[in-house]
Amino acid sequence: MDETTTRAYILLHNVSKKHNVGTLTRIATAFNVTTIVLTGNAHYNVFGCQGASAYAKFVHKRTLEDAVRWLKEDCACEIVGVEIDESAVPLPDARHAWCGEQPNVRSRAFFMGNEGHGLSEREISLCDKLVYIPQYGVGSTASLNVAVAAGVVLSAFAEAAAFAQCNKQGAKFDVAERPRRTQTRGFAEDDEEREMRIQARRLAREKAAHGDDDDDIDNPPPSLDTLFSES
Amino acid sequence: MDETTTRAYILLHNVSKKHNVGTLTRIATAFNVTTIVLTGNAHYNVFGCQGASAYAKFVHKRTLEDAVRWLKEDCACEIVGVEIDESAVPLPDARHAWCGEQPNVRSRAFFMGNEGHGLSEREISLCDKLVYIPQYGVGSTASLNVAVAAGVVLSAFAEAAAFAQCNKQGAKFDVAERPRRTQTRGFAEDDEEREMRIQARRLAREKAAHGDDDDDIDNPPPSLDTLFSES
Repeated sequence: MDETTTRAYILLHNVSKKHNVGTLTRIATAFNVTTIVLTGNAHYNVFGCQGASAYAKFVHKRTLEDAVRWLKEDCACEIVGVEIDESAVPLPDARHAWCGEQPNVRSRAFFMGNEGHGLSEREISLCDKLVYIPQYGVGSTASLNVAVAAGVVLSAFAEAAAFAQCNKQGAKFDVAERPRRTQTRGFAEDDEEREMRIQARRLAREKAAHGDDDDDIDNPPPSLDTLFSES
Repeated sequence: MDETTTRAYILLHNVSKKHNVGTLTRIATAFNVTTIVLTGNAHYNVFGCQGASAYAKFVHKRTLEDAVRWLKEDCACEIVGVEIDESAVPLPDARHAWCGEQPNVRSRAFFMGNEGHGLSEREISLCDKLVYIPQYGVGSTASLNVAVAAGVVLSAFAEAAAFAQCNKQGAKFDVAERPRRTQTRGFAEDDEEREMRIQARRLAREKAAHGDDDDDIDNPPPSLDTLFSES
C-alpha cells in the first residue's frame, strides 16, 4: 500500500437494512471511496447503487477487530467513527484539520454506525477519532440517516484531501468507462439480480485472494436475496 | 420579515416520491431550515421525518413563479438551484463566498430538483445562482439522491451562516420541547397516520391564514395516502 496516496474507506459493521449498502456504495463512489469494508453479516446487496458498485471494491472481514487491524496496518488508515459523542469533533473542525495535513493527508476509514442506534461503546473504543455532524437551531432531530451522514462526511473529506474532481460536461459529470461487464444490460430487475450475482462472485474471489482464514469457508454466503431482513 | 436575520429555506416543486418530503423535513430541521416551500402538487406526507415536522413550517404556493416571488420579495432570499450545470459553482466555493458575507449572510432558498431528472431549464431560469456538489475520482455516479444532496448543501450553508449550533449532552443533541401535540403517541403506524392528519389540518389552516387565493378551494387536498404515486 502506497502510504503517500490519500485514500478514503468506509467501514460498515452488521448493516441491517436491506438497501443501505447499495445506497452507501453510490455515495462512496461519488466521493472517491474505493473500498468498502464489511464485517459481521458482510453479505450485501447493491440495490439502489445505480451501477456504482461496478467501481467500488468490497472487502470482507469476519470480525470488526480484523477489519480495524487491516485498515490500520495494511492501509495506514486512521479510524474515524461518525457519532455524536462527548469526545467527538465537529465535522467543520475536522475538515480544517485534515486540510492542514496537505499535501500528505492521512488516509481515513469512516466507521458509520448501524442504523438506529449508532456506534456502540465497543465500536467507539476501536476508533482513533470521532467526528459528528453539527446540527443547528432548536428543533434538531436526534440523528440523520446513515446515507445523509455519509454524504456529508465523505464530501468534507474529499474536499480536504483535495481529491481530483470529476470533470463535468455541461449538466453531467464524466463517468469513466464502466469496468467490463460479462452480460449486456436488460430490464432493470434482471440487471439488478445479475449485479448481485457478479458481486457475490467478486466477494468470493476476494475472500479467496486475501486468504482470509478467519472466514468460515464451510458456510458460504447464502443467496443475496435472502440476506437481509427488512427492518 | 427581518432582513438582517439569515434564514435557510427549501423550495420543492412537484416532488413525486412518496417519502421524500418527510425525509427532507428531517434534514431541514437538523440544519435550521424553518420553512419548506412546496409548489405544484403541494400535498405531502411526513413519513420518515421522525417527528421533525412538528418543528418545520410548510408554505404552499400553487405555482413555482409565486413561490419564487414570495421567497425573493417577502423573505429577501436568493434562490439557489442545486444542479450540475455549466454555470453552477462548486459547493465549497459557494460556502467560502457565503462565509465572506458574515456577519450579514443573505438568506437563501435552496431549490432541490425533482428526483430523477433534476431542475428543468425553466426551473434553472428562475434561480439566481446554481451550485453543484463536486464529485471525485473516476467512477462518479450521475447524481446523488435528493436527500443526500440536501444534507450536503444545507450543512454547508448552516456552517457558513454561522447558525447557532445545537447543544449536545454526551451522545445526544438537546431537542427543544416538542410543540403541543393533540394526541398521545401510540404504535408507530398509528402515530404516523395521526401525524399526517395533523399535517393536513395544518396545511389547510396555513393556506387559510395566508389567504392564498391562488389555491383551488373547490378542490381540497385528497387524503394523504393517495397523494403520491410510488415512483
